[in-house]
Amino acid sequence: MDKVSQYLLEHIPERSGFFTSMEQYAKVNRVPIMEPVSMNFLTQLVRIKKPKTILELGTAIGYSALRMHEAYPLTTITTIERNEKMFQIANENIRKANKSHHIRVILGDALNVIEKFIQHNETFDFIFIDAAKGHYQRFFTDVQPLLNDEGMIVCDNVLFKGYVVDEEKSDHVRLQKLAKKIRDFNDWLVTQSNFHTSIIPIGDGLSVSVKRK
Amino acid sequence: MDKVSQYLLEHIPERSGFFTSMEQYAKVNRVPIMEPVSMNFLTQLVRIKKPKTILELGTAIGYSALRMHEAYPLTTITTIERNEKMFQIANENIRKANKSHHIRVILGDALNVIEKFIQHNETFDFIFIDAAKGHYQRFFTDVQPLLNDEGMIVCDNVLFKGYVVDEEKSDHVRLQKLAKKIRDFNDWLVTQSNFHTSIIPIGDGLSVSVKRK
Repeated sequence: MDKVSQYLLEHIPERSGFFTSMEQYAKVNRVPIMEPVSMNFLTQLVRIKKPKTILELGTAIGYSALRMHEAYPLTTITTIERNEKMFQIANENIRKANKSHHIRVILGDALNVIEKFIQHNETFDFIFIDAAKGHYQRFFTDVQPLLNDEGMIVCDNVLFKGYVVDEEKSDHVRLQKLAKKIRDFNDWLVTQSNFHTSIIPIGDGLSVSVKRK
Repeated sequence: MDKVSQYLLEHIPERSGFFTSMEQYAKVNRVPIMEPVSMNFLTQLVRIKKPKTILELGTAIGYSALRMHEAYPLTTITTIERNEKMFQIANENIRKANKSHHIRVILGDALNVIEKFIQHNETFDFIFIDAAKGHYQRFFTDVQPLLNDEGMIVCDNVLFKGYVVDEEKSDHVRLQKLAKKIRDFNDWLVTQSNFHTSIIPIGDGLSVSVKRK
């Protein structure tokens, strides 16, 4: 870990025992959850935005959904997970936290669920994309009908461990290909004229896109 | 410039001719204005927050005030500058941009002006501190009575060219002392229980503090 990342990690608040045990679980079981420093920043965005409704693509064990809800308890969160085991663990964590009335986990493929939401005219103020990194452009495109005016979309992993910026950092073909996809997504994202976008070099890299009027 | 900073710089929108000429002026005349990448991020925070009123400490040539107003034209900005020449140049730029009714520049020492504002019960939704780096803790403390409930305070330069994180980066005593002051400010800031704070490693480093209820 570089000095800046270490410094930032030393300057975020300690998490509760409940969240620490989720972080531990994720580490031991190699479930990719958000890094603590970028998670802290994401909760700040939620506090500033105060979204009535949040949609998350990629629940994993429910860590980021629970952290976002803690940051702004008046919000209602819908989160989509395609892996049945993760879906069950997330639901269990949400039940333990007494948040089942505020966080709804949906088991299914994000693109299919999004389609159903569009048919039912569901809308959200804040959309957080933390799902299969190879499909971000598709996700970002497909969720747009669900975004309220003045809404925003945040994506995690847009710098992907530095591979996006430094093409030679990895000699694994799979990682290089994935980095290329994310690089293409970023290039596409910043030219979308219906959004203002910033890429933030925190954690694994976050993009913050605010819908233009 | 490192690879990440270069990548981010390539992924922000081009500025208008007016702003580009201000950036050029600042470069030629060595006026420290905000870096383009962190400026882009600051405008995002303004778009998300939609503050009715912004207070800025440290106007310089009016660049960040004009950029923030462009990002959210419904806001009203008050900005304080102690250097008379800067004050005049800022006013001239604001006049050129036809923003004199929306951005008020006040000539004076920030701490004195803050005191007067407190006496007059002025309040702000968003406070941006970009003034003498050695006095951030004093500024942050003194402006608090001016901050509305649910308001936020952003400070620039909290990583100060990397000197804050890497104590050995400079052997200039003056820079080391200043870095130490900022380091102490950051340590203090993240323990303030009436704010949620994130430090963002973008540009020269931004702190984002949201008032707790």
